[in-house]
Amino acid sequence: MTHDYSLGEIAAYLKAELRGDPEVRIKGLNTLQNAEVGQLAFLSNPKYSKDLADTHASAVILSEKSAMDYSGDCLMTADPYLAYALISEWFTYAESRDSFVHSSVTLDVSAKIAANVYLGPNVVIKEDVVIDAGCYIESNTVVGARSKIGENSHISSNVTIYHDVTIGNSARIHSGAVIGADGFGFAPRETGGWQKIHQLGGVTIGNNVEVGACTTIDRGALNDTRVGNGVILDNHVQIAHNAVVGDNTAMAAYAGIAGSSTVGRNCILGGDVKIVGHLMVCDNVMFTAKTLVTKSVTEPGSYSSGAMPLMKTVDWRKNSVRIGQLDDIARRLKKLEE
Amino acid sequence: MTHDYSLGEIAAYLKAELRGDPEVRIKGLNTLQNAEVGQLAFLSNPKYSKDLADTHASAVILSEKSAMDYSGDCLMTADPYLAYALISEWFTYAESRDSFVHSSVTLDVSAKIAANVYLGPNVVIKEDVVIDAGCYIESNTVVGARSKIGENSHISSNVTIYHDVTIGNSARIHSGAVIGADGFGFAPRETGGWQKIHQLGGVTIGNNVEVGACTTIDRGALNDTRVGNGVILDNHVQIAHNAVVGDNTAMAAYAGIAGSSTVGRNCILGGDVKIVGHLMVCDNVMFTAKTLVTKSVTEPGSYSSGAMPLMKTVDWRKNSVRIGQLDDIARRLKKLEE
Amino acid sequence: MTHDYSLGEIAAYLKAELRGDPEVRIKGLNTLQNAEVGQLAFLSNPKYSKDLADTHASAVILSEKSAMDYSGDCLMTADPYLAYALISEWFTYAESRDSFVHSSVTLDVSAKIAANVYLGPNVVIKEDVVIDAGCYIESNTVVGARSKIGENSHISSNVTIYHDVTIGNSARIHSGAVIGADGFGFAPRETGGWQKIHQLGGVTIGNNVEVGACTTIDRGALNDTRVGNGVILDNHVQIAHNAVVGDNTAMAAYAGIAGSSTVGRNCILGGDVKIVGHLMVCDNVMFTAKTLVTKSVTEPGSYSSGAMPLMKTVDWRKNSVRIGQLDDIARRLKKLEE
Repeated sequence: MTHDYSLGEIAAYLKAELRGDPEVRIKGLNTLQNAEVGQLAFLSNPKYSKDLADTHASAVILSEKSAMDYSGDCLMTADPYLAYALISEWFTYAESRDSFVHSSVTLDVSAKIAANVYLGPNVVIKEDVVIDAGCYIESNTVVGARSKIGENSHISSNVTIYHDVTIGNSARIHSGAVIGADGFGFAPRETGGWQKIHQLGGVTIGNNVEVGACTTIDRGALNDTRVGNGVILDNHVQIAHNAVVGDNTAMAAYAGIAGSSTVGRNCILGGDVKIVGHLMVCDNVMFTAKTLVTKSVTEPGSYSSGAMPLMKTVDWRKNSVRIGQLDDIARRLKKLEE
Repeated sequence: MTHDYSLGEIAAYLKAELRGDPEVRIKGLNTLQNAEVGQLAFLSNPKYSKDLADTHASAVILSEKSAMDYSGDCLMTADPYLAYALISEWFTYAESRDSFVHSSVTLDVSAKIAANVYLGPNVVIKEDVVIDAGCYIESNTVVGARSKIGENSHISSNVTIYHDVTIGNSARIHSGAVIGADGFGFAPRETGGWQKIHQLGGVTIGNNVEVGACTTIDRGALNDTRVGNGVILDNHVQIAHNAVVGDNTAMAAYAGIAGSSTVGRNCILGGDVKIVGHLMVCDNVMFTAKTLVTKSVTEPGSYSSGAMPLMKTVDWRKNSVRIGQLDDIARRLKKLEE
Repeated sequence: MTHDYSLGEIAAYLKAELRGDPEVRIKGLNTLQNAEVGQLAFLSNPKYSKDLADTHASAVILSEKSAMDYSGDCLMTADPYLAYALISEWFTYAESRDSFVHSSVTLDVSAKIAANVYLGPNVVIKEDVVIDAGCYIESNTVVGARSKIGENSHISSNVTIYHDVTIGNSARIHSGAVIGADGFGFAPRETGGWQKIHQLGGVTIGNNVEVGACTTIDRGALNDTRVGNGVILDNHVQIAHNAVVGDNTAMAAYAGIAGSSTVGRNCILGGDVKIVGHLMVCDNVMFTAKTLVTKSVTEPGSYSSGAMPLMKTVDWRKNSVRIGQLDDIARRLKKLEE
């Protein structure tokens, strides 16, 4: 964990303009407020400008404009937040990525494991699996038959990938995620109860996808469930069978897409947004937290149905009971107007 | 994965009326739109009738009435969707179900494992567990002391079953599911904070139950939490301590039942429906998505409180703020009327 | 499971006043209604007073006042529910806590494992981990590099603890929980898509914390995510990066706190409560089920926005559509008044 870089080499990587001493040593990142000597801070949100004067950071990433109020060593760039994101990779904890297969791994003889792959303790790899170069698969993760993991993917411990799942390059999948479990498909029986519809499709996931902890992506009923390139999924997300998620769409915690719904590219689903089944949502749509999407959306923009005003419970009770009288209220108002 | 059946034998299994060539070979299922030669499609929802003329399917499952508009080989049946569900089992991926105990299994000497059972890599079976005939338990799954799994159950990888859990026959449990964790029971301490109530009950689950990925069923405080026969649970479902779920009830993703509530038979909980604690819901009740159930329901039917109209965020803000004024609006209207 | 105590020793432990025979043998707990001979029941909620006359319990925990209506052996105490909670520990299933490291454990040579620790089958302990005395860590659980588990903690099977996580003493962590996965941090790229912000902080958890099944606590972006002492978390809870949860706060199932929000001490979040990012909630606040918290709360008390009246779906449709007309209704009412 002792990373140590010069401000000059950081500036070069970020293509930022360096003002001050390029030899300053940087061994960590922090906020303006908490930074210590040897750390690099950043100023993106103007409400933290007040912290600039008092920071102990050895250098700051900021805009050219903000730099006018700062006399210390700094890196000037048009988008300090993006620059912070980019340089954060240099300071992340890198597991010792020796490429080896732990002695406790259960590896089917038909699986194809590329060079430079790490398979941790108790990993289970089933028949005809393909693991591409540079993959890092941690303890107790299971990869089902005929599934394929693209190069440089990092899969944490206790992940389950079922059979016939295809994952692109540079995936980041967190613990507890389950990819390829059966979609929830059942036909009602005449005599009562449910007849299971066996889920014959798989899952296809693009490149550069992030899958959060305890997030689930179900396999399709007949064709594959599909997740595009650059999609980012927070924890506790659910993508049901035959849903389609377009490139670069982001889903916050507890966001869910029901069966056979399609969400376009560059969409943002806030926390706890739920999209019911068989809908279409076009590109560039934002849904605010707790929205229930009950109809298709064909026009880009921000939509809501969830965020009601927070109030004291005693007031909420008085007001919410009136929701059950709303139709009556509207009719009475109409009558008065007439 | 090379299943290959004659249309005639499929017709016999489905008890469907065959029109055309019984020797046609069927090696897969698909939708009317995507089917290729060699595949069997189905027509259930009338809105897909238009796809009938152009399908490449080698045969179609449809109603007698729809068959009048179709000249190809077909299977006629009263409920094409149910027929599709039934035949889907013939085409599902069947793991090679050799009955063997992998060398890495940790098996307590007191456990009783029936004939014809598969225990995958790293499975852990604790003392006095009973696994009945035909069970298929995949990698890294743990079964706690004295728990019992009924015959022909299929438990995927990375499932946790705690101690004193009884599961009936033909269960299908998906990865990440946790059955028998402690119910959330705490008594407030006089001095502040919480005194844990140890959860002394277990979990009892009936036959033919499906449990989705990352779904949790907690053990009871004093007596068992109970899930009936034929219950189907999607992903991310929560059944709290001492809840009771009646036969054939279905719960969609994120549906949750709080402690000690009882839900009857043949109920349907839409996605994200939450039932608060200590309620009774009778048989044959449907709750639409995102409904919060705050009182007992004694009459069958469909109930709601969750699905509000989706609108542009700018409009939502204008309208939702009025919810906080509703009581005032109702009173002012009353006054005007007087 | 054959615990067997005298009523006298139970009375002494609970500091309760015993009325009757101190030699009565108690081998289990139950409700008044279900108790059999040899079991101890309790009466806390007055609505169960009617069960007192007919109980088969060998003794009852109750208040001095309730004892006046009961002639059997009993323990009188000011808070019977708390007394029941306290004595429940005596009757819980205690795994045979031999302190040993199972032969299948993967244990890094640099890890420090105290005396009297149990590490179950397939547990993986990475470099520089510290496990304090009396810890009980069950099958297939993984503890990442440099993480520390305080003494007498009990971690169930299939839990994932990432690197640089600190957990206090007497933690109880249930299966499927994930602690220390990456926070959901991404910066938008100029060219579209998302640049990952590597999450450089860890997680710090206090003493006596309960973490439910499939609950997730993400690591911080720069500094640690923090969970205080005595916090109790139900299943499917989400605590995002850099959230802070104060001592003794309780979160029911599906409650979630988004990034960088701080919740005070002794708060109660009902089921499915969601707190958006960058807010402050003071001590002693209660949120009712399904509330979305969209602004900071500075005054103790109970707040709501979620629980709308449950009604028949046909009535709900009529009323909820009016929510989209509320602003118009309010304006028309105003006009009429004028």
